[in-house]
Amino acid sequence: MIIDVHGHFTTAPPALQEFRDAQLAALSEGRASAPRMVWPDDAELRAAVEHHQLRVLRERGGDVVALSPRAAGMEHHVPDQPTAVAWARVCNDLVHRVCELFPDHVAGVAQLPQVPRGEMAPLVREARRCVELLGFVGVNLDPDPSGGRWEDPPLTDEHWFPLYEALVELDVPAMVHVSSSCSPALDTLGAHYLAADTAVFVQLMQGELFARFPGLRLVIPHGGGAVPFHWGRYRGLAARRGLPDPASLLDNVFFDTCVYHQRGVDLLLDVLPAHNVLFASEMLGAVRGADPETGIEWDDTLRYLRAAALSEHELAAVLGGNALRVYPRLARRLEGRASA
Amino acid sequence: MIIDVHGHFTTAPPALQEFRDAQLAALSEGRASAPRMVWPDDAELRAAVEHHQLRVLRERGGDVVALSPRAAGMEHHVPDQPTAVAWARVCNDLVHRVCELFPDHVAGVAQLPQVPRGEMAPLVREARRCVELLGFVGVNLDPDPSGGRWEDPPLTDEHWFPLYEALVELDVPAMVHVSSSCSPALDTLGAHYLAADTAVFVQLMQGELFARFPGLRLVIPHGGGAVPFHWGRYRGLAARRGLPDPASLLDNVFFDTCVYHQRGVDLLLDVLPAHNVLFASEMLGAVRGADPETGIEWDDTLRYLRAAALSEHELAAVLGGNALRVYPRLARRLEGRASA
Repeated sequence: MIIDVHGHFTTAPPALQEFRDAQLAALSEGRASAPRMVWPDDAELRAAVEHHQLRVLRERGGDVVALSPRAAGMEHHVPDQPTAVAWARVCNDLVHRVCELFPDHVAGVAQLPQVPRGEMAPLVREARRCVELLGFVGVNLDPDPSGGRWEDPPLTDEHWFPLYEALVELDVPAMVHVSSSCSPALDTLGAHYLAADTAVFVQLMQGELFARFPGLRLVIPHGGGAVPFHWGRYRGLAARRGLPDPASLLDNVFFDTCVYHQRGVDLLLDVLPAHNVLFASEMLGAVRGADPETGIEWDDTLRYLRAAALSEHELAAVLGGNALRVYPRLARRLEGRASA
Repeated sequence: MIIDVHGHFTTAPPALQEFRDAQLAALSEGRASAPRMVWPDDAELRAAVEHHQLRVLRERGGDVVALSPRAAGMEHHVPDQPTAVAWARVCNDLVHRVCELFPDHVAGVAQLPQVPRGEMAPLVREARRCVELLGFVGVNLDPDPSGGRWEDPPLTDEHWFPLYEALVELDVPAMVHVSSSCSPALDTLGAHYLAADTAVFVQLMQGELFARFPGLRLVIPHGGGAVPFHWGRYRGLAARRGLPDPASLLDNVFFDTCVYHQRGVDLLLDVLPAHNVLFASEMLGAVRGADPETGIEWDDTLRYLRAAALSEHELAAVLGGNALRVYPRLARRLEGRASA
């Protein structure tokens, strides 16, 4: 069983963006009226996934993708809470319909209706709705809803605790994933995403979050940003500051494999235990197309993993076993399908 | 000749911080009067370096360190330009005195009097003063004076061009180095530094800065943040956006070796040409002390470099040859000393 834990519905039918545009127009004109989503029919929705995410998954030999709404489209920096709630619901409902169309191959991961310094209650409500009603298996949690300005408290702050309580109760992990950057100096895909992955790891080092929430599981995408490359820096910083070695986080923190060259994936697996690494490709994500020098598609991380120095047992864990453990609702969902 | 291009005067006598505290107190109280620096005598200044940076350099077998004021202490987010000018002058003058005390082993790198969205004229004046009058061999350029909020335009914007004109004319490189973060969610040493290194590389990918300034040389510290680990991501992003391959930046962009474990340094050297990598340890910097598992001091990057898969010729380039090429004023300064 090969599970890609990090796919985005970046190929949604145009009706989704039209809804969003109408939302933002209403906001900027100070109109209260919420726009209506014009739902695509099944054929259009099916085509939007079948020729993209599912084709890529199938061609590369994968079985299941955990699909969430487009990350850069979450736009948590827009400060209006009702707008954020309506936007997350529409995005998640669309992903849910994809899951229903391809129940053996797609599982949902929720966008949360975050706003800068926002309250947790709307996030908890949407997480519950997606997991309990729609069968989603995880959520995306944005550690910086201000879009690169880092206005919210660190993830170790009690500000976030009501959400963690719900995630632990629901038994779903959160992938820590920012949305678009608000600064032209901070490129969304090339800089902000990786910076946030790195910043969150340092937040977690400095707090005692998992003593308080031992059942909380966080997945840091994009191979952990700069973390594996600078593992010695983090070990040294921890020692200097009297903090536990960063390896102490590895009961609760996991890393995906969205690193788009062999040498990077090799480093990731060399530094972190295979137990903590989850196959993912971010498809269709930041990077598309193939390296002209090798002909290998940049985001074909399955290929890098198969070429890495992993035992058969470790490779199986990275490709799927770890995902079934970190996303137990995905395991139950797939078991239910298999026995149906 | 072994040259560490990234040392900070983190061990300055307490009079420096007392001056800064008085500056900030005057600012917060709205007083215009500038405080006076109480200059330490030569013996105190000598001791502050001899038992720290110079001892470490000597013990490890290094010859020369390019020393700049403490990076986190630059505090470019404080928005008052006269305060920034006075602070940079005092910091640079103190480094200059260290250079005069140890002319064979220490060369100066300047702090610039930056403020968020500030003008370039004060920066150009201080760069000229430090290079032409004090004999400094480079400057530190902060790409985000707002301290993690990324309020300034990207380094490719014409906002910065007057400074680049001066740097090219003076024939000194800039190390791109941020100062302290203003957000508790963005740790200065663990997150903001590495995030900025990464963000700047993406800025440079997206502009055509070096077509306009072919003689400009930028050094990205901390091994380039996340860049080598995600080299495939940058190649893929460039291809997707119709930009030149990031390797095209390597005539003008250099990386230091402040990566504190062997596997990280190995990746850095595996991804980037030895021609573009400059020995540095950031000492006494973010990380101090030794790995309890190996007994090796975290920031003893010379040791990692000697253990890396480099030819003798490549190792010599990384340890000093590249520095003499990228910092030609350092080469001339050392030649002058040798023939004196």
